[in-house]
Formats: sequence, structure tokens, C-alpha cells
Amino acid sequence: MPHHAPPQSPGSPRFRGIGTYSRLPQLAPEQRADFGIIGVPFDLGASFRNGQRFGPAAVREASRLVRLAHPFHWIDVYEFLSGGDYGDAPVYPADLAQSIAAIEEYVHPIVAGGTVPIAIGGDHTVSLPLLRAVAAAHDELALVHFDAHTDIDDELFGSKICHGTPFRRALEEGLIDPKHSIQVGIRGSTVTAGEIDDSRALGFEVIEAPEMFALGVAGVVERILARVSNRKAYLTFDVDFLDPAYAPGTGTPEVGGPASHEALAMLRGLGAIPFVGFDVVEVLPAADHGQITALLAANVIFEFISLLAVRRRAAGRAT
Amino acid sequence: MPHHAPPQSPGSPRFRGIGTYSRLPQLAPEQRADFGIIGVPFDLGASFRNGQRFGPAAVREASRLVRLAHPFHWIDVYEFLSGGDYGDAPVYPADLAQSIAAIEEYVHPIVAGGTVPIAIGGDHTVSLPLLRAVAAAHDELALVHFDAHTDIDDELFGSKICHGTPFRRALEEGLIDPKHSIQVGIRGSTVTAGEIDDSRALGFEVIEAPEMFALGVAGVVERILARVSNRKAYLTFDVDFLDPAYAPGTGTPEVGGPASHEALAMLRGLGAIPFVGFDVVEVLPAADHGQITALLAANVIFEFISLLAVRRRAAGRAT
Amino acid sequence: MPHHAPPQSPGSPRFRGIGTYSRLPQLAPEQRADFGIIGVPFDLGASFRNGQRFGPAAVREASRLVRLAHPFHWIDVYEFLSGGDYGDAPVYPADLAQSIAAIEEYVHPIVAGGTVPIAIGGDHTVSLPLLRAVAAAHDELALVHFDAHTDIDDELFGSKICHGTPFRRALEEGLIDPKHSIQVGIRGSTVTAGEIDDSRALGFEVIEAPEMFALGVAGVVERILARVSNRKAYLTFDVDFLDPAYAPGTGTPEVGGPASHEALAMLRGLGAIPFVGFDVVEVLPAADHGQITALLAANVIFEFISLLAVRRRAAGRAT
Amino acid sequence: MPHHAPPQSPGSPRFRGIGTYSRLPQLAPEQRADFGIIGVPFDLGASFRNGQRFGPAAVREASRLVRLAHPFHWIDVYEFLSGGDYGDAPVYPADLAQSIAAIEEYVHPIVAGGTVPIAIGGDHTVSLPLLRAVAAAHDELALVHFDAHTDIDDELFGSKICHGTPFRRALEEGLIDPKHSIQVGIRGSTVTAGEIDDSRALGFEVIEAPEMFALGVAGVVERILARVSNRKAYLTFDVDFLDPAYAPGTGTPEVGGPASHEALAMLRGLGAIPFVGFDVVEVLPAADHGQITALLAANVIFEFISLLAVRRRAAGRAT
Amino acid sequence: MPHHAPPQSPGSPRFRGIGTYSRLPQLAPEQRADFGIIGVPFDLGASFRNGQRFGPAAVREASRLVRLAHPFHWIDVYEFLSGGDYGDAPVYPADLAQSIAAIEEYVHPIVAGGTVPIAIGGDHTVSLPLLRAVAAAHDELALVHFDAHTDIDDELFGSKICHGTPFRRALEEGLIDPKHSIQVGIRGSTVTAGEIDDSRALGFEVIEAPEMFALGVAGVVERILARVSNRKAYLTFDVDFLDPAYAPGTGTPEVGGPASHEALAMLRGLGAIPFVGFDVVEVLPAADHGQITALLAANVIFEFISLLAVRRRAAGRAT
Amino acid sequence: MPHHAPPQSPGSPRFRGIGTYSRLPQLAPEQRADFGIIGVPFDLGASFRNGQRFGPAAVREASRLVRLAHPFHWIDVYEFLSGGDYGDAPVYPADLAQSIAAIEEYVHPIVAGGTVPIAIGGDHTVSLPLLRAVAAAHDELALVHFDAHTDIDDELFGSKICHGTPFRRALEEGLIDPKHSIQVGIRGSTVTAGEIDDSRALGFEVIEAPEMFALGVAGVVERILARVSNRKAYLTFDVDFLDPAYAPGTGTPEVGGPASHEALAMLRGLGAIPFVGFDVVEVLPAADHGQITALLAANVIFEFISLLAVRRRAAGRAT
Repeated sequence: MPHHAPPQSPGSPRFRGIGTYSRLPQLAPEQRADFGIIGVPFDLGASFRNGQRFGPAAVREASRLVRLAHPFHWIDVYEFLSGGDYGDAPVYPADLAQSIAAIEEYVHPIVAGGTVPIAIGGDHTVSLPLLRAVAAAHDELALVHFDAHTDIDDELFGSKICHGTPFRRALEEGLIDPKHSIQVGIRGSTVTAGEIDDSRALGFEVIEAPEMFALGVAGVVERILARVSNRKAYLTFDVDFLDPAYAPGTGTPEVGGPASHEALAMLRGLGAIPFVGFDVVEVLPAADHGQITALLAANVIFEFISLLAVRRRAAGRAT
Repeated sequence: MPHHAPPQSPGSPRFRGIGTYSRLPQLAPEQRADFGIIGVPFDLGASFRNGQRFGPAAVREASRLVRLAHPFHWIDVYEFLSGGDYGDAPVYPADLAQSIAAIEEYVHPIVAGGTVPIAIGGDHTVSLPLLRAVAAAHDELALVHFDAHTDIDDELFGSKICHGTPFRRALEEGLIDPKHSIQVGIRGSTVTAGEIDDSRALGFEVIEAPEMFALGVAGVVERILARVSNRKAYLTFDVDFLDPAYAPGTGTPEVGGPASHEALAMLRGLGAIPFVGFDVVEVLPAADHGQITALLAANVIFEFISLLAVRRRAAGRAT
Repeated sequence: MPHHAPPQSPGSPRFRGIGTYSRLPQLAPEQRADFGIIGVPFDLGASFRNGQRFGPAAVREASRLVRLAHPFHWIDVYEFLSGGDYGDAPVYPADLAQSIAAIEEYVHPIVAGGTVPIAIGGDHTVSLPLLRAVAAAHDELALVHFDAHTDIDDELFGSKICHGTPFRRALEEGLIDPKHSIQVGIRGSTVTAGEIDDSRALGFEVIEAPEMFALGVAGVVERILARVSNRKAYLTFDVDFLDPAYAPGTGTPEVGGPASHEALAMLRGLGAIPFVGFDVVEVLPAADHGQITALLAANVIFEFISLLAVRRRAAGRAT
Repeated sequence: MPHHAPPQSPGSPRFRGIGTYSRLPQLAPEQRADFGIIGVPFDLGASFRNGQRFGPAAVREASRLVRLAHPFHWIDVYEFLSGGDYGDAPVYPADLAQSIAAIEEYVHPIVAGGTVPIAIGGDHTVSLPLLRAVAAAHDELALVHFDAHTDIDDELFGSKICHGTPFRRALEEGLIDPKHSIQVGIRGSTVTAGEIDDSRALGFEVIEAPEMFALGVAGVVERILARVSNRKAYLTFDVDFLDPAYAPGTGTPEVGGPASHEALAMLRGLGAIPFVGFDVVEVLPAADHGQITALLAANVIFEFISLLAVRRRAAGRAT
Repeated sequence: MPHHAPPQSPGSPRFRGIGTYSRLPQLAPEQRADFGIIGVPFDLGASFRNGQRFGPAAVREASRLVRLAHPFHWIDVYEFLSGGDYGDAPVYPADLAQSIAAIEEYVHPIVAGGTVPIAIGGDHTVSLPLLRAVAAAHDELALVHFDAHTDIDDELFGSKICHGTPFRRALEEGLIDPKHSIQVGIRGSTVTAGEIDDSRALGFEVIEAPEMFALGVAGVVERILARVSNRKAYLTFDVDFLDPAYAPGTGTPEVGGPASHEALAMLRGLGAIPFVGFDVVEVLPAADHGQITALLAANVIFEFISLLAVRRRAAGRAT
Repeated sequence: MPHHAPPQSPGSPRFRGIGTYSRLPQLAPEQRADFGIIGVPFDLGASFRNGQRFGPAAVREASRLVRLAHPFHWIDVYEFLSGGDYGDAPVYPADLAQSIAAIEEYVHPIVAGGTVPIAIGGDHTVSLPLLRAVAAAHDELALVHFDAHTDIDDELFGSKICHGTPFRRALEEGLIDPKHSIQVGIRGSTVTAGEIDDSRALGFEVIEAPEMFALGVAGVVERILARVSNRKAYLTFDVDFLDPAYAPGTGTPEVGGPASHEALAMLRGLGAIPFVGFDVVEVLPAADHGQITALLAANVIFEFISLLAVRRRAAGRAT
């Protein structure tokens, strides 16, 4: 397999060139890499602000600033990994069901080839077809879920498939194992007082925001590691996990969230987990400013990539 | 019928109060008025930028600046008309078909009561349920259509019901009579060279933007009046009819459009037409700035209202 | 008294409908509810940026996202409370004195009816007429004041009534009892080094920002509870209490403030206090972005409402 | 009198230096120049959007791009004129009456010294103290008034002195002669149908926007020149004269206005009029974008300056 | 040569996919096409606002809306042409001279292969290396130049190579023939009154903005066609040719410019000219809003492409 | 030496007047003051976003809110210090080398006169000419450096002098003593894993962001004080030290940074250090919103000024 990595040369400042993620090479679904970026420009599942269809383009543009090494992990990422950008999954702008099917279909061959998918949403509905594709290759997954919302409604405003329901559906379909799954950062007003307990009743562990602050980063990481317990895992990161000050460009912002350094530190603690899939969702460029939300998402993806690299290094494997 | 009109008092500057259109009283569907504002916060039919669901709220907020009289027509509008704001039609944020049905259903009793509906979109798909409701009460309608796009596709990106298809559907359903219908301002790149001729083949008269500038306002008005020829008519106004300089806050902007004073002058020339319904669509607040698009739409609505008032005056009727 | 609460139905997504606070029913001053939202679109007292007159409309629009239950307090708020939106107080856009009088007059009957007023400013001057109306019904009040500024100037740029003076005036008029009043979050450069001590000299307890961070949330809450000591209290919340990162849309932002989760946690600790009035002030939409300041204010109000509900529950009373 | 002009040197690109108008030297009221820029950061008279207090700073910042010569008039302006920036008039942020008095007082010595004042508002109320100061030195003036609104209300929302009333007050005080005064560009919805005729009844000539477009630039210029008939004149330019596409940053925008090239061409035709004072008002930076409104105002001022220079040249006088 | 054209399929709405111009295929310099988009992210020559380095990315993103056919010319463009996106020329972010050399070098092989280059700036300096590369293949060129500024300074703020000097340099180097060159739209304040005449003295024909409006579109087109007289020509289009209302996102905006429909109509009249190169420059995304400037530039490029297609059709050649 | 301080009077609200820093008097280089603000509108060294040339104007405008006393230090600053605004250093917009020389030359006489320079960038390149000027007067300096990046590259994208290299150059030229220098806040992805260690290899102490959070403010202050050890020091503050939530308006933002109250607290701990020069750099207004980054920088400068005042007071000296 050829080695794919971002360019680095004097005549190629970061603002030069057509914007793939971190200016990685574009790959076709049949090409192999250790990880692959997949844009999912879908937002028909959004119940409030929409426009997340422009999320992939915005995150790619902001990712120009993402470089090649991670100083905290002290690792030159592309010594251990090859990566590419698989472009966007197909979507049908006025057909929810057809879009969901097309997204899943697009991801299947990439996962089948052994590439770890890193998806950029799109609203949170997109985790469902992604989990379908990843679970098809890897069986029931542990879910590590950073979000302000549990997204386990049975239906929302009359719809079974939308951004409030993906993890209920995933559970019903056996894609995720709630006993090894955990939701972190939940907060905000709810429709009923017992809404968050519904998630616990389904088997998820939930760390609500006030408890998250009380535990601190180390405490949260410990709880996640204990919960996942070395199962193959999927990480889903809704940018509304962050406070709106850090991620204004999102669909259903909730005040009272963590700072970016706290989120990054949590992610950095998860190097021991064998992740087989990732997504970052709900980036809404029309509500962003100064690209700060898109930049955050681009860096969250770099944390994902670094987690993969760190495990490779631990396993003694270079690319 | 009680007389409904906006407030006007020293202690009520225009920034005071909960924002209905022009601070008109809120009415329930069963209440009667000469005209009624209806918000239609629907955008599942948008093929590019979406977020038009926030259009009604933005237009209402900007409409605070709209006053009570029209100096060009020299008319105190509320001497001749009673008007109210019927709030928003119901919509289902992840269900296109159910939303279209609910919108139509919401408008039926209002039209049935004799109120002339003035809808605020929403993407252009909303004209279809509105035409269904209005045509149910008034039979086949002449259509006066200001837009950069013909919106007569048979399907767009695989969908039969979306913002590129409403007038093809309306035609098939016998809601509009193409022989008395006209589309003005059409422009922009197209998928095929013959795309605009497709509209003519369906029976519509089309004035493309270059011809529109050549004709001038008076020439365009003459063509519209001749085409409609005193039939009951429905006026649909897509804000992308205007150049993006005048209406940046929209979903599929096309450069090369007219100025606001040209658009207003065209509308002012249509006082002789017996309009039975209106809509202004595709206001997208997330792409607007300084509220200029929302303000434009709010004033376009005031032109609609004034056309109704002028006909009332001509008919010798006060409220 | 009829029960007033926000709508919740499949066809009413949060972006639907005319924007009262949390889409609560609109009430006239003579109607009763447990709490009542009152907009105060007044900003003639602002000494730097103005435009807070558009604060009530912006907070209402952002409050669409506020739901019905508070998971931290584990309470379905509207099981214990009825609430409505009383619209905006009258104001005179070029007459400060007349506006202040009109605001007070508007609030009197609402308070007299037993409704707890929750006002949305407007600049901080509006606390004065509000305190006048609330103290008229409840006598001298304890003041819980979150702000970057003490607002106890005797005059500011030559004016006795403006946003730098309301609590000096309230003190002189006997509306508040400084011995049970406390100001939290004070910071920023000042005109004289002793300026904050002037507040202490008037009898207020002051927790400056550095001390606030040293105390932590629990320490601050303890100090507030001790100070108020179960007196009837009024809570005034200037959004510039927050750091500009969290509340950029305000008139006199001061860097070095707390995060939103800290502010919410402080408010959540005050359930034992018998509040009889609230305001959130200085939201300036023109300087906001992504609605984050308006959303914060909308949630601060929901914290106020929840405090009322929690006390009702503690008292064993449902609506 | 020393010659004052903007700097021009290789090491001083336009973005360098503290921002006076066009980087002109700062002058004290007692210093003499042919023309003097005076900021009037006052907006207590604004009945809708406010924040025009930041207009002078924004116009000065945008004026960096204004250079030294006018190619249409083919004139090196500073060969014929000396000019400076007199800073801002004093204002009291919560005291309308005191501010109005202070503005007038600030301008008196400047005018008395023979300097032609060019004021930057501020809301349109500021024309009143300016006219008082200028008329004190020059007697009753002809008024050339570009605006969307007549601003001749007797009172607006209860106030006699505000941005809707300056020219009624000026008339009553004998500051302007309506028989030689003219208002151009009037449009928008009004409170009563006869509102614009009220202005005519006071003696003003009024060219409403539709007539303005029909006359064309040359026709409008002719009407203005005929009306003023060589009287000493004052030119007041409200940026809402322009369409909101050209001047979004203003307090009460009205759609249907002219383009910037039309406005500039009208101004360029007025070289024969002996102007003794100018203002440009209602720039509201908070609603602007890309500085386009501020830049427009900065160029309108340069047109004023050029008119003065052209008359000097015609009179055979250099500085 | 393989045929390169944008994708068009139900599952590929315009917001899907990595953003090349109009989603054309990416080509390497050694690949052939009839026309080739080349980004030039260079702005070290900007004397006022900079950031034009982000112009190519912004124009590509906005070009998603550009479709496949031109209704005015009634032509399916890609029936006659093959086109691709050659990515960005290399640049050195802190080295002007090295960047200019690298840009030229990047374009040489593309032009040499027979591809017509269509460059996206970058500031206007980039026309110099482009003209060097194009003239190397085609000899002295006629220049058709749309701009608010003549850009023929000998030096600007001490620099010989910057965005104020490219056409003086091009003239000195024999790249363009002034006798067949024409500058349209010149306006704005200048450093000296004679500055525009300097351009005429160099041999250029200049149509200043006031004359341009007097001539009208047809008159301007006639003058351009007469001037170029069938010579091989290069078209350079500075977006500040447009009024800031239409193109706020630019470095040195000048009020008083034309509308977008006028600009498009001028371009559409030039089908008879044998153009061998094009550029659109000075798009500054940081000052844009609602992408209107980027969208304008994307459409100007489509007009360029259509001119090429029209000539192909006239010559009876399909791809 | 005359005493220079900001104005404070009823008729001078903070929005009045031409915007020097905190409305301090403007001084010529030959005038003396205890500290002097110097704008450095240079950005030719920026490798990603540029436009920092507008930083000085934006910081000055935001500094209107900065008052006269510092409540934490309990000091009336201008009792101990005289200060003025020296305007902007000259720059050549298309000539990096000439600009760097001109900046140094401008600062020399100011420093030579005994005034402590406080520079407002511009990109971080400007620290080099400033250090040259300050070290010329004071010999080798300790460097206290707050930043997300080490800026000690040998070259960046082919350039030796740019915003990635100033402290490597300063070291080579003997301007700073690395043994007494410290870099705080370093983070973000890097080109190589060892990149930050390169800084340590050059002799700097480096506190990376994760360690910074672990140490806490007090720990960081202790480390800085120990490192500087009472040497004459220069403090350079890149606003990207802060998280993008707090400082979105900057050229190369890095997520995961500290809050503003942490940054201020660190600065407040440095009163014992004999600073002889300061800069705050990389403010990029085009990416800012609500002026929050400019306001932060304006307050950082006030912290610098207060540090000088505190040392004066400690030394028993008033102005």
C-alpha cells in the first residue's frame, strides 16, 4: 500500500491547494489506507438549526492548520499511519431514507478494506449508517459518546430516524453494546425530567455535565476506560459537547459545557481503546465565526488519528 | 368582523412588543380578516443552502419597520383592510411528505373563511401546498412568478417534491393555468441549455433577466397584465429574484438580478389583478446581513397588502 | 387560574411559531401566572455600546431551544408552575424619564397579582423601575447581583439615572437592604482604585472576580446564602458577568470573567432563597454571534424559573 | 494659516496611523482650516436601531482609503483647500438636551473662524444643533436634503427633539428657508398616506424616490439647482438615502433606494451652490458589513470637500 | 484527450464533494484540457486590506452553484469544451519575488500544452506572472481590463512589484500592446488629478466609470471590440470593478461602480475576441458576506468559460 | 515632563474622540513619557491568515473601554505613570526587509528617551525589530513569552524573517538570554514531534499547555519569576496564547488554550520583574467578532501598564 500523508514543502504554505482534510491525498473507496476521512453532508435529521450539510467542507478548510505531529503524544503521526480523504458520501437532498442507505453503502467497502473510517457530519443522524457499516465488519461495538444530548429518543417530532434517535436505533439493531457504552457531557433543559434516566434504563452509562466537572478529566477518562474495557469501540463526538463559547457553529447548542482543553485531554486519555470508527458531527458553518468550531472539529479528528498512531506505536508497528 | 391593524402609540416604538408581522394581532385559523400572514417554516425541499425554516421569524422581526400607509399608492392601508398574523403552519422537521400535507391543511380553513393568505417561506416547495389550498377555493389560478429559477423540474436530485419542482406539480394537478401564467427574472447557469425552454413548452410565458432589463419595468408590467388578463391570480415571489447584493440571505442566489426599486415598481403596477394568494419564499437568515433580505421580504409583503387595499379602494369598499 | 405552559407536539418543532419566551402563551397584565416574562426594550441609560432595546426580541428567539424540565434539579417545571409572557413594557425612545416611569407602571399590576416578574433588559438601568415595582409589593429586598460592575455610581457622565447608577438609587430609595445584598464577579479597570470599595462603604458585600475564582462555585454559593439569609430577594443578572467569550453580545464587556457552567452552577445553588423578582440585562444582539449570548440569557431565565419550581416542590405545592 | 492635508509617503500606507478622517491633521476648535471634520457621536434621538454614536469612528477608519484628488472634477483638492479633523463634539450619553446644547456650542467657534463644518453623525437629530450653529453665522439657509424620510414630524413617539423632527424644528427656528429647500429620495411605508405632503405643506420641495428615478440624475440636479438658486446652503445626507444593499449599516433602512453611483453623480452636479455646511448621518457600524456603509459615507464626505475645492478653483483661489 | 466536466447525478447535490471549481476534475500540470482553473493564493502585493490568499478556496467553494449550461448563449458548455482544475500555484508566504517566479513557472507548462488558463487571485499583482507565461506562448497581447483602478503606477509605497503596478511592468516587458488594450470602470479618489491620464499617456484606452454609465453596456462592448480588433487577448477582471454592494469582499473597494448584471452583460458581448487567458482577482473572503463576492467571481469565470465555448461553437468544433 | 493621561469628564463618554490607546494623548517620538504605545501595522511575516496590519487600529478602538485604575493591584495607574500613544511605526506594504528596518528605527529614539515601549502588532515578526531596539538600550534581555507556538524555526516556508522565526533570530543576535527566558502555553499540532524540544535545545524553558494547566496559575508564575530572576525583561504576548473561544481574531489559532482570567492572573503575578519592553501581537480584526480579541489585547496592555505602575509604587515613586 502506498504511503499517503499531507504535503510539506516551502512553496506549499497551508493556505495553498484544494482543501482535503489536512491536504491529505484524495482516495477512491477501493484504495486502502490506515484511516480515511469521509464527509457526510447530510442534515435532514436536524430538528432545530440545519445546514450541517456544509460541515464537511468547513472542517476540511479549517484543517489546513493541522500539521503532522502530536507533541503531547510525542509522535510523528505519519510515521505510523497512512491516511487519505475519501471525499463525501452520496446524499439525496430531499430524501432522508435514500440518503441514509447511500451513506451506509459508501462506507462499507472502505471499512471492508481495513481502513478505519473518520466521518465528518452532517447532523447526528449520520452515526446510524456509519455504525451499521462498521458493525457489519466488526460486530457489536462499545460506544464512546461525547455530547450534550443522549440522542436516544424513540422518535422526535414524529420521526424514527433523525438526529435525536440514532443510538436507540443502533441499540435495537444490535450495533452497539450498551453495557460497554458511555455518554459524557449530557446537559441542558429536557422535555421530561426523566429523559436522561431513559438512557440509563437502556443500559448506557451516563456522565452528566455537573458530574463531569466534579470528576475532572482524569476521573472521566478512568470511567470511560473501565466501561469500554478493551472492546472494539466507536467514538462519536458531537461538537455541542463543548460550550457554545468554544463551538458556536452547531445545531442545538447548550450552555454549560466544557472548554476545548478539557475535551482534548479526555480524548488523549483513550489511547488504550481499540477504536474501529469515529465521527465528529453537528458542525454548522452558518452559525460559526472565525472558523473556531470547524477548527475545533479538525483538531478533534487529529486527536482521533493520533490515538490510532499511538496504538500502532505501542504495537511496535510503523506503516 | 373586528378590525385588526398594527398598534401606533407614543409608548410603542417599533422595537417594542412580540414580533408578529408588522405587529399585527395574532389570529387563530377560525378568525376572519381580509388578509392573513402565515409562516411556513419548512425547508426540507432545499437542494443547496437550507435554513429557510427560520425565514418567517426573521421576516416578522424585520417587519417592525413596516408602517401603515403606502405613499406611492397614497393609501392608508388599514382604512380598507383588516389583517392579522395566523402564526406558523405545522411542520415535521424530518418528514417532508407529512409537512406538505400539514401545511395545506393549515391554510384551508383560512382561505375558506375568505381571508387572502400571504405566506412567508420556507423554501419554494411551500408554494405547492399553498396553491393546493388556494386553488381548492378558487379553481385554476393564473400564476405570477418572480424568481431567478423556473422551478419546473420534473425531479431534482431524485425528488419529485422539492424546491425545484413545485410549478410542474401544480400544473399536473391543474392548480394553475400556464396560459395565464408568467415567470419573470429567470437567469443563472442551468443544467442544460434548453432548461428554460422546458418551461415555455409547458405553456408558461418566461421573461429571462436580460429581456427583463431590456423591457424595463413598464414593459414587464404590461406583459404580466396582458398574460394574466384579469384571472384570479396567485403571486409567488422568490427573493432570489433580486440580485444577491439586495438579497444575500437566500438559498440559491444568482448574480445578475434586478435592484429592489425595480422589483417594487413591478409589484406596484399589478393593482388591477384580482390576487387571491401570495407568498414570499427562500429567505435564509443565516446568510443575510444587516437584515436586508428580511427587510426586503417584509416590504414585498407590504406591497402585496397594498395591492389588496388599492383594489378595495377601486371597488369603493372600506373595511 | 388556567395552566400556562409551552407547547409540545410532533408538528411543533421549536422553530415553529411566534416567538414568546420558550413559546409560552402571551398574557395581558391582568392575567395571573406563577411567573411572567416581561421584556424591557430600554437602553437610553447605556454609556458605551447601546442597542439593548433589541435584547428582549433576541432572547425570546433564542429561547425556542429551552424545554420543559431541568435535569439537574430533576424537575418537570410546569408540573409546579404556570407561566406566561407579558410582552414588553412601554418605552419612549427619546425620553429616559418617561420610559422609566412607564416601565414601573407596567410591572405594578403584574406583581400585584402575585406573579413573579422575570424581566429581560434592556440596559441595567431597568433594574431601578423593576425594583420600585417589586419593593412596592414586598418591601425592602435582599439583592443578589451578578455583574462585572457594581453599578453604584452616584452619577455617570453627568446622569443620575443610567446603567451605572441603579443600585445607588435603589439604596437611597430604600428598595434594597445592603446588609443582605451581595455583588459577585466585579472586575475590569475602574475610574478610581477605590471604586469597588465605594460599594462596600454603602453596605454591600462584594466578591471580586479573583476572589470568586479562589472561592469556587460552592464557596460563592455559601456566601450568597449566608448574606441573603432567607430574606425576600431580587436577583439581577448582567450578562457581562460572564467572560466575553461566553457573552460577547453585551454593552460593556470585561475580560477575565467566569464560564457559563460556573454561572449556572451558582444559580442552581440558590434554591433556598425566596426570590420575588428577577432580571437578566445588557443583552446586545448587534454584538452577539451565533446567538450565544441570547441563548445564555434564555437559559439563565430557565434557571430562575427552575428555582421557583424547586421551592414550590419543596413546599409541597404543585400548580 | 498653515496648510493641512493628508500624508502621502512610501512608508505610510493607508492602514498606518491613528485614524482621523483621511488621516488629516487633528485640529483644535480655535485652529483655522478651509473645512473641518467634526464627529458627532450622538444617537439618543434614534427611534429604531441605535448605535450611531460609533458612526464617526467607523467613517474615519474607512476614510483611510480616501485619497487626495478627484478625477471626475480633475482636481487636486488640497491645492485649493486646507482641512483638518476637529475630533468629536462632546455628548452626554444619557442626556439628550444637554448633548444637543453641547454639540451646538462645540461647532460655534469652528464656524465663526470661517471653517466650513463637515459633520459625521450620529443620528439625524444632530442636524438641528449643526444648523443652529451654521445659521448663527450665515443666516437662514437653503437645505439640500438627501434621505428616505422627510424628518419633519412635529413629534415622534412623544419627543419633540429626535431624529424624526430636526427639520420641523429648524423651520420653526428660522434656520432654514423652505422655499429654497428640497428633499430627495423620500420613500418607504409611512404612518399616514399624507405624511409626505405635510412636508410640502411646510414649504419644502420633495422628490419622492419613484419620481427621482423617473427624472434621472440630471433631472434631479437641475431641480436642486433651481430650488437653491445660489443661496447659501447646507447639505444633509442621510445614508439611508441609498438602498440598503449599498448602505446596510443604518438605523431605519428603506428598500427601493438608489445606487451609489447615482448618489455620487447627484452630488457632483452641485458645484455651483455656495455650501456653508454639510453633514452625513445615520451610519450604524453594528449593522454594516465589510465597512461598505462607512466607506460610502467617507466618500460622500470627499464629494463635499471636492465641491468646496471646485468652487475655490472657479473663483480663482488656491489655498 | 479525455473529456473533463463537472459531475451531475441524483446523489451528488452541489454541496457534496471536495471543492474544485464547479467540482471539475483535478488535473496535474502535464494533463491537457481546453481550459484550466489555476488558483493563485498570493497577496503580498496588496497595499491595503490583504487576505486575498484565501480567494481561490472561497471562489471554488462558491462555484458549487455553477452549473453546466449558459442560457443566454444557449449553450451546453461541456459539449464544446473540456476543463479541469489545476489546483494552486506555489507561493512563498514571506517572499514576494520568489512567489512571483514560482507562479509564472507553474503556469508555463499548462499554457504550453494548449490549455487556456483561468486564474483566480490573489491580489492583482498575479496578473504579471500570468501575462509573462501567456505572452511567452502567444506574443504581445491585447489587454481587456475591468477594474476601479488603472494599476499602472511605476511604484506604490516604494515597491515596483505590487498590486498597483502590474500593467506598467507588463508594458515595459512587452507583454501587452497598449494600442489594443482598454481599461473599463476606473473611478475613486486618486493620489493626483492626472493619475488616470498617466494610463492614457502609456497608450491605454480608458473608460472611466461616469463615461461607462453614459455609454451603457452596448456602447462599452462596442468600444472594447473596436479596441481589441481581433487580436489575441487576455482578460483581467478585478472584482472591485463592481460596486462594493455587489462585491464587498475585496481589498480596495471603490463606491460608484456598476451592478452585476451590467458586468455580466459586458462580458457576454465579447464572444468575438480570441481570448488566450483570463484572471479574476482581489476576492477577499474575510470582507465578504453571504459569499456574494465569491459567487460573483465564480460566475464571472463561468462567463469566461462560456466565451470560449461560444467561439468553439462558432468555429464548428465540439470537444 | 508633562503628565499625559486619558481624559475623564462628563461630556467625554468613552465612545467620544479620536481613538488613540485608551484615548491617551498622541506623542511624537521625541516626546517623553513613562510608557508609550506604538502600533506596528506589519503582517508580511504571516504564514497563514494575514491582515494583522489592522491590529493596532482595532486594539485602539477597543481600548476605549479601558479606564484609569486597576482594582486588583488597587492602584490609580496615572498617579504613578505618564503615558502616550506614539502612533504607528512606518511600514512598506510590499517590502518585508525595509519594513523591519523602519520599525526598529522608529522605536530607537523612543526607547533611548527612557520611555518603555508597548507595541501592538502586527504579526509576531515585529518582536524582532522591537527586541533589536530595546536590547540596543538595555543589553541582552530575559524573554517572557506567552504563545501557542515557540516561533524558533530557523526558517518557515523558505523565509528566515517571518512570524515563525523571531526568537531564533533574536537568540543568534544576542538580543535575548535563553537561560532567563521562558515560553508558556505551547500547544497544537507540530511539523515534527521534536519541534518543541528544539526550543529547549536552544536554551529556553518551555511550559507546554498541558503542563501549564497542571501547574495552575500560581505554579506558572513561580516558574516565570524563578527563570527571569530579576533580569531586565521583555514580555511578548501572542493572543493565540488564549483559546480561540477567547481570541478568535488571530492568524494561527490553536484550540486547547487557557481562559482570559487565567492569562490575566499570570500577568498580575509578574510585578517583581523589571520589564523594559512589551508587545501584544497577532490580533487579526477580520477574524474577530464583537471585538472580543481586540478588547482582550487592550486589557493585556493595561496589565502591562499596571505592572509598570506597581513597580513605581513599590519604588516609592509617583510621576
